[in-house]
Order: sequence, then structure tokens, then C-alpha cells
Amino acid sequence: MDISTWTQVPLMAGVVALVIAAGLYLRITKLPEGNETMQRIAGYIRVGAMAFLTAEYKVLAAYAVVVGGLMAATPALGPVAATWFLAGAILSLLAGFVGMKGATLANVRTAQAAAGGSKPNALLTALDGGAVMGLCVAGLSLIGLYGVYAMNKGTPQLGTMLHAFAVGASSIALFARIGGGIYTKAADVGADIAGKVIENIPEDDPRNPGVVADNVGDNVGDVAGMGADIYESLVAAIVSTMAIGLTASDEVLKTLVDDPAMAGDKVRELAVALPIVLAGIGLVVSIVGIFVTRAMKNSAPSTVLRAAMVLPPVVLVGVTAVLLPMFHIKQSVTIALAGGAIGGALIGLLTEYYTGHYGPVKGVAESAKTGAGTNVIRGMAEGMESVFFCLLLIAGVAIVANQAMGGLGLYGIGLSAVGMLAGTAIVMTVDAYGPVADNAGGIAEMSGLDPAVREITDELDAVGNTTAAIGKGFAIGSATLTVMALFSAYSLEVHLPKDMLAVDNPRILIGVLIGAVLPFIVASSTMLAVGKAAGAIVEEIRRQFDTIPGLREGKADPQPAAIVSIATKAALSQMILPGLVAVVGPVAVGFGMGPDALAGTLAGALAVGASMSLFMANAGGAWDNAKKYIEKGGLPGHAKKSDAHKAAVIGDTVGDPFKDTSGPGVSILIKVMSVVSLLIAPLIAYHH
Amino acid sequence: MDISTWTQVPLMAGVVALVIAAGLYLRITKLPEGNETMQRIAGYIRVGAMAFLTAEYKVLAAYAVVVGGLMAATPALGPVAATWFLAGAILSLLAGFVGMKGATLANVRTAQAAAGGSKPNALLTALDGGAVMGLCVAGLSLIGLYGVYAMNKGTPQLGTMLHAFAVGASSIALFARIGGGIYTKAADVGADIAGKVIENIPEDDPRNPGVVADNVGDNVGDVAGMGADIYESLVAAIVSTMAIGLTASDEVLKTLVDDPAMAGDKVRELAVALPIVLAGIGLVVSIVGIFVTRAMKNSAPSTVLRAAMVLPPVVLVGVTAVLLPMFHIKQSVTIALAGGAIGGALIGLLTEYYTGHYGPVKGVAESAKTGAGTNVIRGMAEGMESVFFCLLLIAGVAIVANQAMGGLGLYGIGLSAVGMLAGTAIVMTVDAYGPVADNAGGIAEMSGLDPAVREITDELDAVGNTTAAIGKGFAIGSATLTVMALFSAYSLEVHLPKDMLAVDNPRILIGVLIGAVLPFIVASSTMLAVGKAAGAIVEEIRRQFDTIPGLREGKADPQPAAIVSIATKAALSQMILPGLVAVVGPVAVGFGMGPDALAGTLAGALAVGASMSLFMANAGGAWDNAKKYIEKGGLPGHAKKSDAHKAAVIGDTVGDPFKDTSGPGVSILIKVMSVVSLLIAPLIAYHH
Repeated sequence: MDISTWTQVPLMAGVVALVIAAGLYLRITKLPEGNETMQRIAGYIRVGAMAFLTAEYKVLAAYAVVVGGLMAATPALGPVAATWFLAGAILSLLAGFVGMKGATLANVRTAQAAAGGSKPNALLTALDGGAVMGLCVAGLSLIGLYGVYAMNKGTPQLGTMLHAFAVGASSIALFARIGGGIYTKAADVGADIAGKVIENIPEDDPRNPGVVADNVGDNVGDVAGMGADIYESLVAAIVSTMAIGLTASDEVLKTLVDDPAMAGDKVRELAVALPIVLAGIGLVVSIVGIFVTRAMKNSAPSTVLRAAMVLPPVVLVGVTAVLLPMFHIKQSVTIALAGGAIGGALIGLLTEYYTGHYGPVKGVAESAKTGAGTNVIRGMAEGMESVFFCLLLIAGVAIVANQAMGGLGLYGIGLSAVGMLAGTAIVMTVDAYGPVADNAGGIAEMSGLDPAVREITDELDAVGNTTAAIGKGFAIGSATLTVMALFSAYSLEVHLPKDMLAVDNPRILIGVLIGAVLPFIVASSTMLAVGKAAGAIVEEIRRQFDTIPGLREGKADPQPAAIVSIATKAALSQMILPGLVAVVGPVAVGFGMGPDALAGTLAGALAVGASMSLFMANAGGAWDNAKKYIEKGGLPGHAKKSDAHKAAVIGDTVGDPFKDTSGPGVSILIKVMSVVSLLIAPLIAYHH
Repeated sequence: MDISTWTQVPLMAGVVALVIAAGLYLRITKLPEGNETMQRIAGYIRVGAMAFLTAEYKVLAAYAVVVGGLMAATPALGPVAATWFLAGAILSLLAGFVGMKGATLANVRTAQAAAGGSKPNALLTALDGGAVMGLCVAGLSLIGLYGVYAMNKGTPQLGTMLHAFAVGASSIALFARIGGGIYTKAADVGADIAGKVIENIPEDDPRNPGVVADNVGDNVGDVAGMGADIYESLVAAIVSTMAIGLTASDEVLKTLVDDPAMAGDKVRELAVALPIVLAGIGLVVSIVGIFVTRAMKNSAPSTVLRAAMVLPPVVLVGVTAVLLPMFHIKQSVTIALAGGAIGGALIGLLTEYYTGHYGPVKGVAESAKTGAGTNVIRGMAEGMESVFFCLLLIAGVAIVANQAMGGLGLYGIGLSAVGMLAGTAIVMTVDAYGPVADNAGGIAEMSGLDPAVREITDELDAVGNTTAAIGKGFAIGSATLTVMALFSAYSLEVHLPKDMLAVDNPRILIGVLIGAVLPFIVASSTMLAVGKAAGAIVEEIRRQFDTIPGLREGKADPQPAAIVSIATKAALSQMILPGLVAVVGPVAVGFGMGPDALAGTLAGALAVGASMSLFMANAGGAWDNAKKYIEKGGLPGHAKKSDAHKAAVIGDTVGDPFKDTSGPGVSILIKVMSVVSLLIAPLIAYHH
């Protein structure tokens, strides 16, 4: 059978995904929006979120024009590459824009469905809101990649065009993730400190001018930011694996097939097409999964959603096992894919163990009894321990893929990342469902709806927290594997003699040190940014309480737009430095010190970036849930507002920028560095 | 001139150092010990410290017997290697034992000198107490290394014997550092929580049964632990550079000399002898430096001590520049050495900037105004930022050495580590001086001496904090460079073809991930250990206050020995796991996955270990000094006991295990892993 027929699958699956997304979007718009207060508050959130996106897109447009211009002017890249770079960027922006529209329409309608007393309807609405994002992310990325592939297939520039597309996707992801991360946590921490600590009013209280910004933050961080991140992951995983297929030697490539008579070009075509075909099949499986999930709306939400995230990769493995013999591809590909699929599920479960209400989180909660110091120490210790097991598990996946694929080991590792990301559409759906449910709760609270409504939204939100943990595991796991594959693609592309690539080359080791520091400066600057922006928000909230007569008594309305504006400006101005580190870092090392030093830099960044992002994500999750555990009465005698609870709140405050700003920022940093290095590889390569 | 004459320098300098140490020790014993209360308290500390050392040495003896036995039974190593392993270990223990004896005799005599009203005398006594340790550390390490060198010179087993000696040194350093680190912080945190927080009595209050253990901890952590660490650093730096000299190809070695006619063997002899000769000259310079410092006892202590630490490496560079032409060695060696010497000083100053009362610490203090959460976040952000600059500086030193030495780049990086450590004797003197001065203050407080006495000891202690920061910079900087040189020695020894050592070998990349997780499990387990042990100490202190009649009123004596015993047991039992990780980790990867995976593991551990240890050391230092800054009135309106101060105390609590347990533990981990890998390299090498 001819593989070129099958390369239509990603295109068709992508189009179907977009059509379904449009249908769900229309369905959402037709649902009842609730009373006038709800509509007004939801309007604030929607306008605030869109205002952020618009402002962010202006910055990104400037960035895209500059980088695109530079690329167009570089002879080895040229205007076509620059166009694909723009396409990669624009499709990401489009997915973010439409997805966030869907989410900010669904939040109030979810609240209204809950107000109608129907948990299944509320679940369905929130899920559909998330699915708009999930389907757009997976659909647009595959359509875009199909475009690059189909238009450059068989030409020598296919690799460069793929890299350019990936750099576009990465750049947007980087800024969206960091900017969104700063925004969401600045608003969250700012609103919390001003509201809970200074004014002593409950969470989501309508008098607090920061609550709207907090809800906006959920959208710009967990919907738009996360969406761009996952879009990038999928693109990078596919591109890196295709790139290895493009550049590996004929001799090595032959090990992919079981027919020794197959010619080199034929095998290469297979190797290049396989990643995108598998991702296309993964999307088909995910779409089916979304409908199955919707149909099961009356079951216990947690079971359904968890299964929905874990099953698609497993189904893909089965389909692949059947498909491969048709192309004479060895079943070792299935093993690599299965390693990724199963590994992804296990990492998700491991993440849940470290951040859910199990031993580690209970330990963190217990340690709050002796104060914030011990609480913070324990959370960090648990987060560090989680790195050990999670990263070893990822290493295990890589070992399986490498052993199975022999000489094509890093191609196999790339395939395992594709396998892990096969459920992107549904993972992203469930990820985006979380903030929709969270927003619905906020709107219910701010609109003064019946506490029973809040109960429904709280249950939906709680499920979202669990699935978010699983989603994070998938994201970091696949990112690590992808970076390994990108690394291999870079090494092939840069044409270095092996002795220069050897780790005992001092320039490689020096590069390792340089690579190690970049995640630290990104983590440092994003944490400082959250602190600064949160401080500015606290001041503005205080000003409003002090100067708006009747606000404290609930007789006057706050001015949420002012807070939204502060958070927007802060996030946009503070995302520049860490963003530049990711892009300029590899360029400076590559041109300044040479391709071998850059290889070392990538290895150092991989080691530190993968471990630090896991550490920050899991420690942050553990503190968050330790606080919630105490609030739910997990420590008898230490209720809400007790000293232990206050200590846990401090841990949670530390964890906020950890898990939602710096951790994701570091994770995306290493992907962007690798993609940028891959793009500039031909420019810094030694030719001999 | 013949280099073999010069190889006597380290032996002679070592002997002289020991003779001087003995003289200073005798001088200390003859100084007045103060009144009966002071003697009793000092006795508690001395007995407690020796009890810990004795107990620790029993564990270490068991470890040494097992590992030595395994080595003796391994054909490629044998009983002679096992003997050198034991020698490396025993000399470390000896230095620790004598040094701690000196420190625990000097503390009470320093207090008594201060009671006599003479700051210069108090300074001199504390300095002499530290010098016993400093001279023993440098003297014994050089005598031992000279022994290995002289007895195996010219034989094929010289390399193995050097590695075995280094493994002995490393093993002791590992356990002494981690065990001592757990002890010191468990006692510190436990005594603080029970005393300041629960009983509300001041620091060092004689009623608190934990205060003696806290003072013991300063000795076992900052004297014995630090001493073993620096002993190991010096040994590893010299051994790694010698090992590169032993295994580099003739062709590459020729670039060391400017006489093209020099034969291969002659050059090799030079390359192997040079590191230990330079270290010997460094010791001579340091001994002179110690006497100059003593002579300047009437000057401002901070200036004298700071200059004392920074100048010896610089003098060594000058001597080297004059010496090299006699052996036809190129001046590129001077450049590498100078890079290390100047780099070490700069890292010290940079460390001081990030942990002294400058911008970053003031920022951390400011952030305490809005609570412990922001204080902790800011401290971490500043610590992370410091990693960026410190590690880039170390990378800069490596770049200078590498560029200067051409094909012998990693030999040059090893020399730069030797250059940085040239002042070991005096750096360790000043480092050990700190806890002596600190102890003197504690004894003065507990003995109820005049507040004027405490004022003198406080001033001496404050200087100790600054020099400790500089010393930490030297330690981590030299450790990083040493690990790079060890890495190179490993790569040479393991005889891998370059394509297997290339970073695009998947097994290397998988190794990078495995190497990245090891520092995290060591950091996690040591932090948990401190928390657990501190908890047990708090309970015992509470028990004593509740059950000893009259203790709270100051009419009955506490039982400090019980606390000392708890801390000792906890530290010894909790140091096993992290210690095993360091030793078993490389062995498991090397034999289980092969030498290429182990190379990747070392690279990953280097990236994460160097950055994490800097992060933890500097963040911890920043929190500590932010608290002190507030206590000294740095934040007008936020005095001691204010909310801001309480928030800063929480930051300091987090920082305690960071900077004194986990950070040093991670730093030594990567050294031990590298040394163990070097030793087992011939056993796991591929032969072809």
C-alpha cells in the first residue's frame, strides 16, 4: 500500500476536527446565558480576556515581523521559509483565539446549566467549551504540517520549511505561555492577598475588583497559554521525528522496514510520512473519544474524563500494529509508540500521586502544623522526589524506544513522543474544561447564585484539577522526549564530526554549563515578574477600596477593567526578557561559540529544564492540594483560618508562580531552544 | 631543571603545615579557659562533637571495610588500590578529627579572650583554631597524594592508585558533609523552633537543652564537614588533572611545552607532576599568608580575612609564571591558572553580592513586608538569578583555560581548579574560624558573660559570615571545574570510540536524564531528613521543659546530651541513602547500561548539580541575611518580632537546609559520582 494515500489522513482529520469545533461553538452560543448580572460579569471576563489577547497579539505581530524579516533576508532560509514560519505562528494564534472565545462563552452557560440544576448539562457545556480549543489545536496543527509536507515533499527544502513552521509555533507558545502565566498568577496572587488577607473577604467576592482579572487569568493562562504550548508540542514532536527521517543515513533507515529489497528513497518517504500519519490517526481516535465522553455525561465525571485522556494513545497503538505490516514497517515502531502511550499514562498517574490527596500531599499538609517554614521545605522535598521518579520513567520510555528501534533510536524516541501526544485533542479538551468550570464557579459566586449551584461547579472544578495534573504529566513527558528527538535532528543537521560532538570536547562541557543557567534565568525573571505585577494589583485594589464610596459595603461596583489593564501590561512587558533568552540564547551560542558548544548547551538545558519544570509543577501542585486538604478537614483540629491553614496558604502562594508560570516557562524554554537550534543548524554547520 | 626535585615541594610543604598546626594546637591548649561555667558548657560541646565524630567514624569504618574489601577482591584494582583507598579515607578522617579538636578547644578560649576585653587576642585565638583545620586539610592531602605519586611513579598503575586515593577522600567527604549537614541544621532548626517559637526564650538561652547541640552542629557541619569537602576538592582537582596528563596522547601532550625536541615520556612526566607541584607551592604561599594574617591581628578583621582568601592564588600565579620556563612549559599554563585564581575571587565576590547586604538581600527583606510567601518567592528568584551569573562566570573560566591550552583544554580546566584551590589552607582556616567565633558567642551567652563580650564575638562572627560566602563560592566553583576535568579523565580512561561518546547517541541523552534526577533525590532526602530530625529534637526539648522541674525558671540544668544523641542518630541514619545514591548510582549505570550512558549521566549530573547547589547556597544565604538585615533595623518600622521579621524568619528556616545540608550535599554528589566513575572506568570500558 502507498503511504501517500495515508498522508491525507491528517488533513482530513484536521478538517473534520475544525468542522466539529465550529458545530460545538454554535451549540454553545445558543445555550441560555443566565440573568443580567451573570451576563455582565461574564462580559467583563470575555472582554478582559480578549483585551489581553489583542494586546499580546500586537507584541507577537511585531516579533513575527522582525524574525520573519530576518529569516526572509537570510539566504539559506529565504521568503518561503519566512512564510511557513508565519503560518506556524498564525495558526497557533488562531487556535488560541477561537479556543478562548469558546471557553469564555461556555463559562457563563455552564453556570446557568448548573443553576438549572443539571450536573450533566453543566458538564457537557464545560466540556464543549474545552473541546473547541482541543479540536482547534489538534486540527490546525495537523492541517498546517500537512501543508508544509505536501507542498515541499521530495524537495531538499522540506526540512527547513518544517523547522521554520515549528519555530513559528514555538515562538507563539513561548510568549503565550510565559505572558499568560505571569498574567494568571499575578491576578490570582494579587486578588488573594488584597481580598483574603488585607480586606478579609472570601474568594471570588463580587466586591473584590481583582476577581474578574483572576478569572480572565484562568483563560489566558490555562486555555490560551496551555493551548499554544500543546500545539507547539505536537508540532515539534512530529517535526523532529520527520527531520530525523529526512537526514538519517540510508543504511540506518533500512532498519525501519522488514523488506531488505526496499529502496532507500522509498524507506525515507515512509520514515518522513509516518509521524504525521500516526498523529492523524491519533486525532481521529481523539475525536471519537470526545463524542464517547460527551455521550457518557451522566456517569461519574472523574472516571470518564480520566479514561478519556488515557485511552486514545492506547487505541492508536492497536491501530498502528495492524497498519504497519501493510508498509513493511517493523513492529518495533509499535513498541516505541506503545512506550510513549503507556509512559504518558503512567506519568500522569505518578503526577496525580504526588499532587493529589495521597501520601506526599498529606505529608505537606501535616508539616503545616509546625509552620510555614516546614510546609515549604516539605513541599519542595516532595516535589524533588517526584522529579526522581517522573524523569526516570521518561528515561525508561526512551530506553524502550531506543532498544526497540536499534540504530534509529532517536527516531523511536520521537515516535514515543508522538504516541504520548496522540490524544492531544482530547487532552487539551479536558485541560481547557478546567478553567471553564472554574470560571463558572466564579461567576456563580459573583452573581450571588444559590450555593447549590456552586456545589455543582465545585465538583466539576475538582475533576478539572485532577485532569490538569494528568495533562501536565503528558505535557512535560512529551516535551522531554521531543527535545531529545529535536536534539538528534540538530546533530544530524549540523554535520559535526563525531569527535567534536563527543562529551569530552571541552566546548561541549562548557555548553552544558551555559545550557544549565538558561532555565534558571527564565524561572527567576518570571517569578520576579509575578511578584511585581501582583504588588501593583494589590495597590490598585487597595486604592479602589479606599476611594470608591460604598464598595466595601457592596453598594457600589468595583472597576475590574483597571486591574485587567495592569495585569495585561505587566504580563506583556515582563514576558520579553525570558522570551528573548530562549530565542537569542541558542543563536548567540551557535554563532559565537560554534555548533558543538550549542549541542552542549541543548544537553545542559535538557537536564536542568526537564527536571526543574517537573519540580516546580509538582511542588506547586502539592502545596495547592495540601491547602485544599486542610480546608476539607484533612487535619482534625486545624480548620480553615487555623495556623496550620495559614501556613499552607503561604506554601500555596509560593507554589502559584512555581506551577503556573515558571515551571511551564522552563518547559517551553527547552523546546524553543531546540527548535531554534534546529533551524539555524545549517547556518552554523561546519562544511567539509 | 628536573621536575622531580620540585615534586618534593608538596611533601615538604605538607610536613611544614602539620608542624605548624601542631604548634598552634599546643598554643591554644595553653590559653586560659575561662570560668567553671564556660568550661562546663565548652565541655558539653566538645564531648558532643567528639561523640558525633566517633559514631560517624564507626559507620564510615564499616563502609570503608566493605568498599575496600570489594576493591581488593576486584582483579583490576587489587589490595594495593584498596590500601590507597583506605589511606585517602583515613587521612581525611584524621584531618577532621584534629581540626575539630582544635576548633572545640579554641571556642571557649576565644570567648575568654573576648572576656579579657581584647578583640585582637580573640581574633587570633579563633583564627588559630581554624588554622589547625586548614593546615591539616591541605597538609595531609598533599602528603597523601605525594605518597601515591612517589610510590607509583612511572608504573602503569599510578592512575588507578590515584583514583583509589581520591575515592577514599570522596567517600569520607560525602558522608561527613551530608551527615554533618543534617546534624547541624536539625539541631539549629529544632533548637530555634522549640526555643524561640514555642518557649519564647532568646537564642542561645542556657535553659534551652538544644543550644549545645546547635553549637556542636556548627563544628560537625562547618568544621568537620566543610574540611572533608575541601580536602576532597583539592585531592580531586589534582588527581583529575594528573589523570589527564597520564592518559592524553603524546601528540596532544606535546602542546604543553615550547621545545619540540622534548620526548613524549619527558613531557608526560611534566604533565603528571605539574598539578601537585603547583598545589605544593600554593600551600607554601598559604602558610605565609596565615602568618601575615596573624601578624595583622590589630587591623580591621574583615579586610584582612578577605584579602587573605583572595591573595594566595594570585601570588601562586606570579610564582608559576617565573617557574614554567625552567621546564620549557608554555605560559598558557599560567593563563589557565590565573583564570582559576581570578575566577575564584570573582565568584567569591559575586556570592557576597547575592548573599550580603546589597540589592538582592535588601529586595528579599523588602518582600517580607507582604508576607512569608513573597519573601520565599523573592529569595528563590534571587538565588536562581545568582546561578545565571555565577555559573556563566565558571563557564568563562573554563573557556579561558580551554582556549589557552588548545588541545589540552580539559587539562587546562583542571589546572584552573587547582589554581582556584591554591589557597586551600587559608580558605579553610578562615572557614573554620567562623564556627569557632560563633561558638564563642554561644558560650558567652550561655555562661551569662557581660554583653560587651558578646559584642566582640558578634563582630568576629559577622566577619565569618562574609568569608563563609566567599569560601562557598570557591568551593562550588572549583568543584564544577574539577568535575569537568574528572569527566575528561573518565572519557580518556573508558576508551570509548568517539561516536559512542557523541551527544546524539541516545544512550548519552538517556544518561543525561538519569544524571539529572540524582541531585534531586539527594536534595529531597536530605531536606526531609532535616525536617524529621528537627521534629524529634523539638519533642525532646518540650519533654525536658515539661518534666524537669525548675528548668523553665532557670533553676535546674537541661540535659543537652539527650539532644546531642538524637541529632547524632538521626544524622547518621539519614546520611546512608543519599550517600549510597552517589556511590551506587554510577556503578549501576556503568555496569547496567554501559560506559556511554554513564558519560551522559555525569554530564546531566554536572548540569543539575552545579546549578542546584549554587541556587540552594545563595538563596539560603540571601534569606539568612535578609532576616539579619531586618534585625539590624534595615526596614524602618519593621523591627524584630514584627510581621515582616516573622516572614523573614520563615524564609531563613527554608534556607537553612538549603544552604547547609542539601546544597553542599548536591555539590559533593557530583564530585563523588565523577571520582567513582573514574575508578570503575577500566572495569566497564569496551576493549577493542
